[in-house]
Amino acid sequence: MPSYKAPLRDMKFVMNELLEADKQLQAMPFYKDNETADAELLGQVLDEAARFVETEVQPLNQIGDREGCVRDEQGNVKTPTGFKAAYDKFRAAGWTGLDADPQWGGQGMPHMLGIAMNEMITSANVAWGMYPGLSHGAYSAISAVGTDEMKALYLPKIVSGEWAGTMCLTEPHAGTDLGMIRTKATDNGDGTYNITGTKIFISAGEHDLTDNIVHLVLARLEGSPQGIKGISLFLVPKFVPTAEGKVGERNGVVCGSLEHKMGIHGNATAVLNFDEAKGWLIGEVNKGMNNMFIMMNAARLGTGMQGLGLGEVAYQNALAYAKDRIQMRSEPRVNPSEPADPIIVHPDVRRMLLTGKAYTEAGRALALWLALSLDTEHHHPDEAKRKEAGDLVALLTPIAKAFMTDNGFNVTVQSQQVFGGHGYIAEWGMEQFVRDARIGQIYEGTNGIQALDLLGRKVLMDGGKKLQKLAGTLQEFAEENEGDEHIGDYVNQLGKAAQQLGSLTMVIGQKAMQGAEGADEVNAAAVDYLRFFGHVVYGYLWARMAKIAQEKIDAGQDKDGFYLAKVQTAKFYFAKLFPETKALAATIKAGNETLAVDDKAVFGWEAPALAHA
Amino acid sequence: MPSYKAPLRDMKFVMNELLEADKQLQAMPFYKDNETADAELLGQVLDEAARFVETEVQPLNQIGDREGCVRDEQGNVKTPTGFKAAYDKFRAAGWTGLDADPQWGGQGMPHMLGIAMNEMITSANVAWGMYPGLSHGAYSAISAVGTDEMKALYLPKIVSGEWAGTMCLTEPHAGTDLGMIRTKATDNGDGTYNITGTKIFISAGEHDLTDNIVHLVLARLEGSPQGIKGISLFLVPKFVPTAEGKVGERNGVVCGSLEHKMGIHGNATAVLNFDEAKGWLIGEVNKGMNNMFIMMNAARLGTGMQGLGLGEVAYQNALAYAKDRIQMRSEPRVNPSEPADPIIVHPDVRRMLLTGKAYTEAGRALALWLALSLDTEHHHPDEAKRKEAGDLVALLTPIAKAFMTDNGFNVTVQSQQVFGGHGYIAEWGMEQFVRDARIGQIYEGTNGIQALDLLGRKVLMDGGKKLQKLAGTLQEFAEENEGDEHIGDYVNQLGKAAQQLGSLTMVIGQKAMQGAEGADEVNAAAVDYLRFFGHVVYGYLWARMAKIAQEKIDAGQDKDGFYLAKVQTAKFYFAKLFPETKALAATIKAGNETLAVDDKAVFGWEAPALAHA
Repeated sequence: MPSYKAPLRDMKFVMNELLEADKQLQAMPFYKDNETADAELLGQVLDEAARFVETEVQPLNQIGDREGCVRDEQGNVKTPTGFKAAYDKFRAAGWTGLDADPQWGGQGMPHMLGIAMNEMITSANVAWGMYPGLSHGAYSAISAVGTDEMKALYLPKIVSGEWAGTMCLTEPHAGTDLGMIRTKATDNGDGTYNITGTKIFISAGEHDLTDNIVHLVLARLEGSPQGIKGISLFLVPKFVPTAEGKVGERNGVVCGSLEHKMGIHGNATAVLNFDEAKGWLIGEVNKGMNNMFIMMNAARLGTGMQGLGLGEVAYQNALAYAKDRIQMRSEPRVNPSEPADPIIVHPDVRRMLLTGKAYTEAGRALALWLALSLDTEHHHPDEAKRKEAGDLVALLTPIAKAFMTDNGFNVTVQSQQVFGGHGYIAEWGMEQFVRDARIGQIYEGTNGIQALDLLGRKVLMDGGKKLQKLAGTLQEFAEENEGDEHIGDYVNQLGKAAQQLGSLTMVIGQKAMQGAEGADEVNAAAVDYLRFFGHVVYGYLWARMAKIAQEKIDAGQDKDGFYLAKVQTAKFYFAKLFPETKALAATIKAGNETLAVDDKAVFGWEAPALAHA
Repeated sequence: MPSYKAPLRDMKFVMNELLEADKQLQAMPFYKDNETADAELLGQVLDEAARFVETEVQPLNQIGDREGCVRDEQGNVKTPTGFKAAYDKFRAAGWTGLDADPQWGGQGMPHMLGIAMNEMITSANVAWGMYPGLSHGAYSAISAVGTDEMKALYLPKIVSGEWAGTMCLTEPHAGTDLGMIRTKATDNGDGTYNITGTKIFISAGEHDLTDNIVHLVLARLEGSPQGIKGISLFLVPKFVPTAEGKVGERNGVVCGSLEHKMGIHGNATAVLNFDEAKGWLIGEVNKGMNNMFIMMNAARLGTGMQGLGLGEVAYQNALAYAKDRIQMRSEPRVNPSEPADPIIVHPDVRRMLLTGKAYTEAGRALALWLALSLDTEHHHPDEAKRKEAGDLVALLTPIAKAFMTDNGFNVTVQSQQVFGGHGYIAEWGMEQFVRDARIGQIYEGTNGIQALDLLGRKVLMDGGKKLQKLAGTLQEFAEENEGDEHIGDYVNQLGKAAQQLGSLTMVIGQKAMQGAEGADEVNAAAVDYLRFFGHVVYGYLWARMAKIAQEKIDAGQDKDGFYLAKVQTAKFYFAKLFPETKALAATIKAGNETLAVDDKAVFGWEAPALAHA
């Protein structure tokens, strides 16, 4: 059975040494006033979170996978054994409101801390963690654009964890293309709407953990324009609350079935049938997509965390196995009295392990940096700082989502490989990590869509301004450290790659202005571009972490080897993972030309319009 | 539900145009005399095989996954619904003996044809295909090193499919390291041995498809040396045959349990308990590993075929979905009257599809080339030709196993990605392909072990002679075509890469001679080296296929666009996949240095020997 220990030491390193988070948080009155901008306090909360997650949540992971969720004929859904008991403890201890506003009963902790907790929960039991995760998304959207009445009625219940939330976007014919959704809303004239339609793939869509579920639903109000500009966001509770906030009458939304899927079996992926369900508009009419994006950006970082968390736990278990499993010899022998040596001695096993370590530690640094930037965006008193942080968040969110889930999946696969045949057997738990990690690359906008968001929207749409700002930060760091005896070589590689990123961007940007074919050039380059960009970001973070670690070593402060490990993992990263940029530069440059193949010959496909012509 | 059509056109292209197989087979008396060296006949058999596989085997694939195999308390195993009926038809039609020797009731078809059939079966239903696949391995080993009596007793039964076979290698503590196995054999003094021990992960280890199962078991004869040099191979039938070849008394081998695993649920992965089971020595005492390798080499190519077959079927279904699914717009619109265009218009979707097409078609060319080389090795009258073919087989087998299964897995993952959320849902069948493909990278020697076999044993052990021979073939091809207007650019890229492969090999070879650390350098480079080598081989095959296709186009013989597709897919391969070699060259060069990290600091591990010192 797999095990898990939260990587507290590394989380604290990132928060305190890399990001100097408490200094930054002290500058934000919200945290200062709530007395939550204190490194020691944050550390204690982290320790407590780790204890809870390790003892209450992780042991349910394999049970959840085996049992899955069960729907009865009335559409009620039972979660796996132990899920509700753990959830009850979780909310009793106040974890559901960790980074929520004290105004609604939350603890006012930084979002950065919430993200660290999120990583732990994901490592321990991603399917279970999605229930409170989705509620957190609903909290964000209602906080941001709900009416005061709505906030007062719903937020305390969501923050306390008594009620849960969902995001209802996808329909059978409309996934990426939400402009095509058909769920319709009719105005009852009394401030309420009737919602009718079918939503699919609704994570945590129905369950027995809470008394009520608050669905946030994209629907088209009668008379609205076609496409994406005619979509509004509605709040549709499973039970309509009474004015006092009690659970009232059952609303017209029912779970029609649960999907059988590759992984995350412990989470109920529901088909939800809305039949004249009573709903309330959230935000303005026809601004549903914008409002949904408030949730989606948080959800995208949250999805990235699944890649990170699953990579981390898979790595931990592969490491333990590699120390324990004896097979073949090394020279010199480390186990002279045994018939073989632990497989951790074999360089290729070390390569797989170090890949896991290098990707997860860089991912953790990115995630916490991004989360702290979210805190800054929301709470810094200086508008310019808020804007700057917001731009950074916008730029890095698609990278966090796609690069972290792609790497996370690959790390689960490589960690499974360390186990040999045992990795394929359910009992060991490694194959579950692979199955659970796979969805992160698909949902909340596929990683292909993230890449388009990054290149098309975040980089090119403002003429590269956000990119230039980040490039400036990198440039500054590079200039400061170019002759450094320890990290000078990394900084050189990084500088070259950053420059290359700039010139690749320019080339694509020029192509992009060439009409229809330009759009195809962006689409053709996007996925490789995001991966290249991801390596530049990870490279920057590794160089910075190596610098800090080296300083500690030089100062004689490396008692347990933590900093030596950082320095050596950085070296591995630049030697063995970063060179992927060489291949990516070539494939990005190759553009759309080789993709624009003859449809009939290559794919046996004739475009209907052309066929009719 | 996924569908499958055998890629007959492409198989025939490879056999007839790329390999000119009939010419080569005509030079081998075995096939000439059996009248099986005829392209038309081979084509007809292929067509018939496709019909059988598409209609009888493929429809059972999802059923097999859902139901799995069931073991009763006595250790009997029931295969999924329909598996036995399909198997009965399969053997009634003579498919089990397709490429077996007519002497034992086989049809004497080329091994190349058997491999093509193997691909189809794997695409259709890999779990089902493993039952006859394992029997084929047993056939090979008994044919090669069995006694005449053993051959007469067992081979007709295996060839007719009345009896099945298995390979019993792994034990709980001994996977890669077979020198550690504990299953023991005692000599009964009457030509039989008693076999006692436990074997795990035995594919097709117990089932209800046949009247008898012939286990080939590695065990240690009492008094034999420790390690790999004390292992012998034994034949242990489930039922001891009577002298007339009927099923006799039940032998002491029982299925103790079935594994719950990630995929290939329709195949019984058994724990087999041998309790003084009666066995017969196959080949010489203490030569078990050599004899087992006769089976393993075939099994390794067979495993490579799983990567190919699963990649092919996943690609086919992704292609169909990409034509059918409408989502988002392209410019110009191809579906003006619909709200969106088929996703096949989007360059990133095309990139994923072309990746599938490029890897599977190159894999098919490699597999059939290798299989034809096996035919040559076994049946060519000229000893020098046999030796040359044998060397090529030795060199390419680990590449076929590892590169084809790695690419196959990646293609299933990318094809799943084309489906978006639907790819994660069991009903669509894509996630099963991913789960089924994963095992190919693990069993029959992990892909890490294949890489060591390639670099350590096949390349370096004979001072690079086999490599040089292949490099000569490439060189010749490159010189002939370097100025070619169509493939000249590919040939240049290929030439550079081949040269680089040579120099990388030299560097590693030099390091390898430096004692213990040298072995680590080989181990550190091996996986990336195999991937680099794989691209050189695929690049060679793509350039050759493009050349042939271009000639047909130039001659006005491309009626259906098949050759245009070849030319364009080759172009895609060199633009988008082959550049991975740039990254690999860098990571190979980086060597073992960054893997030789401080164990205590990085992994929290102290080698026991060092700890005691």
